[in-house]
Amino acid sequence: MTHVAGGARLVTDVGEFGLLDGVTNLIESSRVRSSGLALGAGDDAALWRPRPGRLAVISTDMLVESIHFRHPWSDAASIGHRALAVNLSDLAAMGARPRLALFALGLRGDETDRWVYDFYRGALALAQTWQTRIAGGDIVRIPPDAGTTIAVTVLGEVQPQRVMRRDAARAGDILAVTGPLGLAAAGVRALQSEQTQLDGAPVMLAAHKRPRPRILHGLLLARAGVRAAMDLSDGLLGDLPKLCAASHVSAQLEFDQLPIPNALRWNFRQDYKDLVLRGGEDFELLFSAPPDVFLRAVQLCLRCNLPPPTAIGTLTELSGDEPAITMRWTDQRREVLEPGAFDHFAQASAAG
Amino acid sequence: MTHVAGGARLVTDVGEFGLLDGVTNLIESSRVRSSGLALGAGDDAALWRPRPGRLAVISTDMLVESIHFRHPWSDAASIGHRALAVNLSDLAAMGARPRLALFALGLRGDETDRWVYDFYRGALALAQTWQTRIAGGDIVRIPPDAGTTIAVTVLGEVQPQRVMRRDAARAGDILAVTGPLGLAAAGVRALQSEQTQLDGAPVMLAAHKRPRPRILHGLLLARAGVRAAMDLSDGLLGDLPKLCAASHVSAQLEFDQLPIPNALRWNFRQDYKDLVLRGGEDFELLFSAPPDVFLRAVQLCLRCNLPPPTAIGTLTELSGDEPAITMRWTDQRREVLEPGAFDHFAQASAAG
Repeated sequence: MTHVAGGARLVTDVGEFGLLDGVTNLIESSRVRSSGLALGAGDDAALWRPRPGRLAVISTDMLVESIHFRHPWSDAASIGHRALAVNLSDLAAMGARPRLALFALGLRGDETDRWVYDFYRGALALAQTWQTRIAGGDIVRIPPDAGTTIAVTVLGEVQPQRVMRRDAARAGDILAVTGPLGLAAAGVRALQSEQTQLDGAPVMLAAHKRPRPRILHGLLLARAGVRAAMDLSDGLLGDLPKLCAASHVSAQLEFDQLPIPNALRWNFRQDYKDLVLRGGEDFELLFSAPPDVFLRAVQLCLRCNLPPPTAIGTLTELSGDEPAITMRWTDQRREVLEPGAFDHFAQASAAG
Repeated sequence: MTHVAGGARLVTDVGEFGLLDGVTNLIESSRVRSSGLALGAGDDAALWRPRPGRLAVISTDMLVESIHFRHPWSDAASIGHRALAVNLSDLAAMGARPRLALFALGLRGDETDRWVYDFYRGALALAQTWQTRIAGGDIVRIPPDAGTTIAVTVLGEVQPQRVMRRDAARAGDILAVTGPLGLAAAGVRALQSEQTQLDGAPVMLAAHKRPRPRILHGLLLARAGVRAAMDLSDGLLGDLPKLCAASHVSAQLEFDQLPIPNALRWNFRQDYKDLVLRGGEDFELLFSAPPDVFLRAVQLCLRCNLPPPTAIGTLTELSGDEPAITMRWTDQRREVLEPGAFDHFAQASAAG
């Protein structure tokens, strides 16, 4: 168990197999008993049995240092939390209950074992909240000049009739989100400009560093009868067009209904609208539903002591070939907005 | 469909979403209909229903440029093949039938779209052989100085009573492998020393560039009643100690029974034994079984026109706390061999 304590030895000195032993000990000591897991870490693969009648839901995401996180901005535990959270968010968007997670971690070797164990501790703490078992921890070497690389796969289960998909939105639906918009992007902005003493900064920073996957909201929405949802990773104007395209509908947004945190209006007067509309990685759920279903979702959330979702607009029939996203501003003026997906490569290009 | 043709545009110019469209088109056109897939690429997660009574088998692996492959040594299609193959090999080792695969690809942006599509074509060709559906293709940006990074997750299914595990080997079992040893390591050696004109080089190079996951062998072994198996990724003396440790047994190897390709004896007279015993990434299956079960496995393979497995030794009771790996050489001399797992970090250290 000395491995698990994690001093400050270099990964190179501890070695791949020593590290894997330490990680396995950490996982064992977390004592999460995930439903249906038949074989966890240590063999060539994990074995899992979804409950009878349930569909398996699978998602995978890669996080890379200096693109998706920065060491100076985040401690190891927050990075571990975040790596799992962004994956669990995909399950939340499907209305699924998470069951297990597999981690593949690419390390240069000049990290400390403490960093690795703290990383897993952060992930395990979140996993425990959702009774999710980490059922595999592969560690591979990456070149000395590469950035820490994390690939996470999560598996969950869902009743087939409760799946929420991107292509199930309908004209006439109310469009809604489960929480405030733009906080995570504001957190990144504050870190970039070294303005971490701003009013409301802790909430923004937490939204970036430790996003909370909306698992419970996802389950309640699905139970209420919501059939169309996705998670907000690329910003409202990045993701809403995907929902609209998959479902062949247009959307009308009501600016006055958008859940905009006051801290954004105060601290980013010039461009808070940009943060709200195009800021990515809030990991709130975006969904649509007929009015009665939306109302039931609000009731269920209130009954469970969860913040109820906010209606932000409506879906309409397509008028042309392509979905249009229209905004009604405070002065009632309507404007068609340019879709603004956060394109990793386009951004790289612009930055270069 | 012009996307799919894939000229030589830069990834930065095509953009994340253009690339994903192209990849989705490629996947659709491959027309693999995997059993139980309810929702493939395009949503937040994939949906899959294992057949009744089957366990889901899940494995994930990360491959990083200049550690696990090199662009000058391998074309894009071979890298795609290899990325899927090393993951399918983990399913083969469990006796599972592959069903779906998820890819996460980290790109700098200075690659061409043709490279990306050729990569997926290589993976799709192998996927098609095994009726495995690629059900998600995430693409993320990595820093300009990072190497291409690939994380693959595969899912398969297995009957619970047919699972092969590392901890099910027993003293008295015959120890066996499904094919020749050392070929892939010899291929790497030939590439490193630019001796690709050696006698037998094509077979060695193919073993490295396009390893063939032993899915069919795995299914037949499991059907024959084999309960203990793993795949050879870290070399015989890297992996056998793991099997022995998990099952609390020792092993005695018979040198004259090892399936050593002639090309290795001819071309690497000085150290072919090292390639055979410690060379990694052959992705043959290592398994153990009582003699009657081993015989049944040989019969099943012959009946299916597959090369039958080769017995290479026996498993014995532990004599101390730790498993011992003993070799009987041609002159009948017995020697206890040092375990030799390929430790990525130790190697980095030695190289540094």
